[in-house]
Amino acid sequence: MNVVELSGGVGGARLARGLAGIPGVNLTAIVNVGDDSVTQGLHISPDLDTVIYTLAGEEGPHGWGRAGDTFRTNDELARFGIDNRFKLGDLDLALKVFRTAELAAGTTLSEITLTVAKSFGLHAVVLPATDDELRTFVRLEDGWVSFKEYFVERGHRDDVKEIRFEGSADAEPAPGVIQSIEESDLVVIGPSNPPLSIWPILAVPSIREAIAHHPRVAAVSPLIGGATIKGPADRVLRSLGLGSGTNSVANSYGRLIDCLYVDESDVIDLPDVNVIGTDTMIQTRESAIRLAQELIAK
Amino acid sequence: MNVVELSGGVGGARLARGLAGIPGVNLTAIVNVGDDSVTQGLHISPDLDTVIYTLAGEEGPHGWGRAGDTFRTNDELARFGIDNRFKLGDLDLALKVFRTAELAAGTTLSEITLTVAKSFGLHAVVLPATDDELRTFVRLEDGWVSFKEYFVERGHRDDVKEIRFEGSADAEPAPGVIQSIEESDLVVIGPSNPPLSIWPILAVPSIREAIAHHPRVAAVSPLIGGATIKGPADRVLRSLGLGSGTNSVANSYGRLIDCLYVDESDVIDLPDVNVIGTDTMIQTRESAIRLAQELIAK
Repeated sequence: MNVVELSGGVGGARLARGLAGIPGVNLTAIVNVGDDSVTQGLHISPDLDTVIYTLAGEEGPHGWGRAGDTFRTNDELARFGIDNRFKLGDLDLALKVFRTAELAAGTTLSEITLTVAKSFGLHAVVLPATDDELRTFVRLEDGWVSFKEYFVERGHRDDVKEIRFEGSADAEPAPGVIQSIEESDLVVIGPSNPPLSIWPILAVPSIREAIAHHPRVAAVSPLIGGATIKGPADRVLRSLGLGSGTNSVANSYGRLIDCLYVDESDVIDLPDVNVIGTDTMIQTRESAIRLAQELIAK
Repeated sequence: MNVVELSGGVGGARLARGLAGIPGVNLTAIVNVGDDSVTQGLHISPDLDTVIYTLAGEEGPHGWGRAGDTFRTNDELARFGIDNRFKLGDLDLALKVFRTAELAAGTTLSEITLTVAKSFGLHAVVLPATDDELRTFVRLEDGWVSFKEYFVERGHRDDVKEIRFEGSADAEPAPGVIQSIEESDLVVIGPSNPPLSIWPILAVPSIREAIAHHPRVAAVSPLIGGATIKGPADRVLRSLGLGSGTNSVANSYGRLIDCLYVDESDVIDLPDVNVIGTDTMIQTRESAIRLAQELIAK
């Protein structure tokens, strides 16, 4: 069975681990690159790395970086007066250095990502939504800022009034993205932040179109009891005027989805979407596999 | 007293430590950049880093890198199939990352070097010979190769038939270089490899000219008993047709130097150069200070 997941970071990565853990499922994860940045001169793809590290069972304890990492280089950067709050672990840094050097040599982000996934022994295919530069900007009370400034530097405390995805109109999907959607039996939108992590994927016109034409698209809500466990999804949905709770998640995807998996406490009736209550807490691999099995069984 | 030293890596760095250790000496080290390379996408300036680390008492045990360094990132790079024989330590990497990011942001190598030296608390001024791209290439039996291929990848086993310094004809000295030479009471050419580490500095036309006009230029031979302790200087001098022993070092500098400090066992009479026998073994800071005192006293 061919399954495509659209994924942001932590939540989407955990569901990917569940889907990849089911024998007979061929998973392609199509991952948000709107949060990519150049930090300390290194090309950072936070969501791609979180998906790969999580699939490999090597993810860090806080939703970024690698398990058991150390911060020798990152700590030393302070000597040169560098803002090193964006913590780059020593093991993690190897991937960043490799990717930056390969990009400089003309290799595409999707080619690099396939190499990295293979080097971690993954069977799942992991693809950036696009090899083109597509960057998320958010409008706060005091104007437009980059995703990184909003999320890392300001700690996602501000209200997000508006979002735009620079470069999206002309962005081509990475090689393999459209084919994987067309050949999939099921498209899952992972429990990531809908506006900040999934919209930038859907902002690539031909990806949105392929998803819109797909007969079976299921989304998993990132909300539990109307709120997020971590991250600002609930507040972002509200401040963008999409409402609250299950309604806001459904609104964020409109007619693209056929059904929406939510926590038992978040079940409501909606006219156009089949809302299904289940256990959407997927911190462990086992719970993620359980949810994934439910998704593919329907 | 203002002293300028032209320096390559280890030997020159050790003498710089001696000169900087004498109260009342204002040292400017003008350092070879012919060995600079981009490795793993990072801008590497081996000699600048060795000089700074050595002046800071933070040099690694083998003539490169930092004391007490670890190799977490470097080891992990092997996962991606990268040739990681050019070992980048985790602490050392912070400097490489900082420099690469700053260069990409348009800061010059000399500005970056001044910042780095300051961040290590150095009083000595450390300058690259030039901010322009000047790169050493050597002709071996089988053709021209980069310095890095010759030195790192082939382990400097081949005979060097010829040397060229790409970019040198148009290279401008870094800001402060010419002034420091003109204002110096003494120019010392450190005990570095003459053709491979000092010639690339002298290949910048206006530096060569300033040295040629200076009234007091002393060189320290890198040879002990006609041979090098480490590195290929003796073989390179010979294979370039400059002869052997003290003669070859004097030939490599021609009329630029007034006197040449050599190991007691290497003293010979030369028509144009005052050859002075002394203890040129300067592994320790104390022995380097002793030699430096002798140099400035003459």
